[in-house]
Amino acid sequence: MRLSAQEIASAVGGELLGDPTVAVLGAAGLNEATESEISFFHNVKYIDSLQRTKARVVFIPQKTNGTPLPEGKTLIRVSNPQWAFAQVLGLIDHKHHPQGVHPKAYVEPTAKIGKGTIIYPGCFIGHNVRLGEKCLLYPNVVIAEDTEIGDRVIIQAGSVLGSDGYGFATQQGKHHKIPQVGKVIIENDVEIGANVTIDRATTGETRIGEGTKIDNLVQIGHNVSIGRNCLIVAQVGIAGSARVGNNVTMGGQVGISGHITIGDGTVIAAQSGVMSDVEAGEVLFGSPVRPIKQAMKLQAIYGKLEEMYDTIKQLRKKLS
Amino acid sequence: MRLSAQEIASAVGGELLGDPTVAVLGAAGLNEATESEISFFHNVKYIDSLQRTKARVVFIPQKTNGTPLPEGKTLIRVSNPQWAFAQVLGLIDHKHHPQGVHPKAYVEPTAKIGKGTIIYPGCFIGHNVRLGEKCLLYPNVVIAEDTEIGDRVIIQAGSVLGSDGYGFATQQGKHHKIPQVGKVIIENDVEIGANVTIDRATTGETRIGEGTKIDNLVQIGHNVSIGRNCLIVAQVGIAGSARVGNNVTMGGQVGISGHITIGDGTVIAAQSGVMSDVEAGEVLFGSPVRPIKQAMKLQAIYGKLEEMYDTIKQLRKKLS
Amino acid sequence: MRLSAQEIASAVGGELLGDPTVAVLGAAGLNEATESEISFFHNVKYIDSLQRTKARVVFIPQKTNGTPLPEGKTLIRVSNPQWAFAQVLGLIDHKHHPQGVHPKAYVEPTAKIGKGTIIYPGCFIGHNVRLGEKCLLYPNVVIAEDTEIGDRVIIQAGSVLGSDGYGFATQQGKHHKIPQVGKVIIENDVEIGANVTIDRATTGETRIGEGTKIDNLVQIGHNVSIGRNCLIVAQVGIAGSARVGNNVTMGGQVGISGHITIGDGTVIAAQSGVMSDVEAGEVLFGSPVRPIKQAMKLQAIYGKLEEMYDTIKQLRKKLS
Repeated sequence: MRLSAQEIASAVGGELLGDPTVAVLGAAGLNEATESEISFFHNVKYIDSLQRTKARVVFIPQKTNGTPLPEGKTLIRVSNPQWAFAQVLGLIDHKHHPQGVHPKAYVEPTAKIGKGTIIYPGCFIGHNVRLGEKCLLYPNVVIAEDTEIGDRVIIQAGSVLGSDGYGFATQQGKHHKIPQVGKVIIENDVEIGANVTIDRATTGETRIGEGTKIDNLVQIGHNVSIGRNCLIVAQVGIAGSARVGNNVTMGGQVGISGHITIGDGTVIAAQSGVMSDVEAGEVLFGSPVRPIKQAMKLQAIYGKLEEMYDTIKQLRKKLS
Repeated sequence: MRLSAQEIASAVGGELLGDPTVAVLGAAGLNEATESEISFFHNVKYIDSLQRTKARVVFIPQKTNGTPLPEGKTLIRVSNPQWAFAQVLGLIDHKHHPQGVHPKAYVEPTAKIGKGTIIYPGCFIGHNVRLGEKCLLYPNVVIAEDTEIGDRVIIQAGSVLGSDGYGFATQQGKHHKIPQVGKVIIENDVEIGANVTIDRATTGETRIGEGTKIDNLVQIGHNVSIGRNCLIVAQVGIAGSARVGNNVTMGGQVGISGHITIGDGTVIAAQSGVMSDVEAGEVLFGSPVRPIKQAMKLQAIYGKLEEMYDTIKQLRKKLS
Repeated sequence: MRLSAQEIASAVGGELLGDPTVAVLGAAGLNEATESEISFFHNVKYIDSLQRTKARVVFIPQKTNGTPLPEGKTLIRVSNPQWAFAQVLGLIDHKHHPQGVHPKAYVEPTAKIGKGTIIYPGCFIGHNVRLGEKCLLYPNVVIAEDTEIGDRVIIQAGSVLGSDGYGFATQQGKHHKIPQVGKVIIENDVEIGANVTIDRATTGETRIGEGTKIDNLVQIGHNVSIGRNCLIVAQVGIAGSARVGNNVTMGGQVGISGHITIGDGTVIAAQSGVMSDVEAGEVLFGSPVRPIKQAMKLQAIYGKLEEMYDTIKQLRKKLS
């Protein structure tokens, strides 16, 4: 890549402040960027990095709310600096994908694969799978029988879709398998991380809604339904038949109990455990979860427990 | 599938109440079932679903303890409705497994594979592995050297049995590998989920007892011993040399410390952490765990910590 | 293997106490060892096992601090019994690795593989990968494009290096992929467990330092930097851009927030959650973490919360 600041500003529809002729050869975060790279600033938290960055071209947001802007830089004002940065990275990204289905992938003859879909070596595509257009499956992904996948779905290496749900009927202390005859449905524009597991439904479907992004090593149980545009961070576990709304965010290692409902727009902080239904729009933390402000307040007082304990002892002494 | 309610009642040994001629074309949960599907009711928790279900045929338990039964349905009384339902699902389940060892699996010539065992593409079966009869290994399962597996064992895709245990001898701040020369033994009728890891022993064996069912993304360390008929839910981690008894249940994301013993019949709630030995039959929750009643009580009082803190302040004021 | 106690003592440079002619045919832990096996004692915690072991030859440390030594055994005094034991296991370890790159592995022609490196079936080695000498990659490991791996690196089965980092720019509720154009760098003598995931950097690098050992099912986010000689136990999750120092130990299921720094020599107990920077040398526990002594003290008082609550009620009564 070799572009001028002006060319980049035009490409992302931004307003250029400073020298339009500066050459940009690459892109990097504020801390890592060299002089010839473009970077982005989107959060007051990183203001020190902005002041210190070596990047000579930086995307900045429309509203900088009085943040002192660095001198001698070329700045490009955009509505979403992270998104502008993503577009520049798109220009740099030249990965060497195979063309279509790699001969070292295994595809059952009854599977249907859409146009422009790329399948790496070591993938398994089972009987009666429906895979949409422009999907990208990295090596060793397993798509089991009957799974339906929309368009533009990306699946990182080693993930398994359509494994049997964890269902057993217990008779006199022995656990007998409940056959899992349902399927997995992945809607358009979903991304699934590496070594993720998504179980097929016992009957019916396990569904991941359009635009939802799932990180590595996440577990999705049978008959789970996840809405649109959710963010599910690494190592989250969602137990069977849970229903997750739209635009829900779960931090890493969160656990969701089976058969509960999580409302739209909920945010659940990392390592939390949710054991019962959650209303739309809540922000939660803890195991079990509470509203995050309360959870933080309780954590702070928890830190004073020793002091509280001693005070109670003294008070009791005084009173007796 | 097309069966009458009478045929199903006979097949599972149930008592039919209502119209024996109703046609059943499929099976589903109470909430999802259509008119032509059979469903099951086994827990008072789902009484609303029972009242609202569209299924015209429903398995119910022998004792319904005064639960009002829905009108106009054909009911089949059985001792275990979930098990009866599992049997019906078995009639519907027509997955397209390969016959025997798929040519795209890799099997070392010294491995022994029992009759009727099915191995999907992408599996690796190492030197001197013993695999019993009627096992089912889904795609990309890795069975490392010397592993011994009994009969009727099911392993979902991407799981690894016999990886090296995590053992290092530290000399002056550097960690030197302790060669792991032991093995993994899986007894009959075990099921192992997707992307599970079970390490070989340093010396001796890591053992999973007969009938134990392990969910996805579980980690079993070296030299762990798990008893018979345990249920180990997704993302549990069991550290090296832990000994787990029979009929133990662990909820999702539980962690078990190394070198401890968990007694028979223990139940450990999701996300709990067990750091020391547990007596048989205990029901535990928390990190670190406590008896569940106590843990729940403590959680409830924890929620009042702010109120307690303020009260103590007031009391101290009054007294001084 | 068939060695005399004397031969073993000489091989590991130990001081022999007792009969030098005892034959050793194998090696095992104190509890599992038979009469013809050698074992090791390194921790007072296992003194009962030392007294009861059937092993006739046992490695013991230089300083036994008055520990009563068992009678009738041949003892070999060494500076590090675990390391001596590891050396003996090295003599027993005769695994059947393939020679070089197995024909059922897939290696892009542009990848460079060092001398003496072993690659099992089902591995994928992407475009422009650099793999050093004497590495060992177990089956179904995926090394994505541009990854650089040093010498003597061991990667257990099913792990994925170089999957895309979890980065999205959100515009009006929709999440757009931020292309991940950085790479993964693994330094010399690293070991990586089974089904681990290590994401490539957005730009720049994700780096694992020399001699660091990573257990199974660990998640390492994009742009994470881990120092030298760390121990990262199973199911740990380290979020994007976290910086971990040298000689850090993390117990199982620990979670580390993104963009924070963990100082050298830190020890973080299992299931802990770290949400902010940690100074060098700290020993921490809890979610969120506190210094372990304080965390343990608080846990103990937490167990008395019911008693505290009742006492406060009584005090208030008395005072009103």
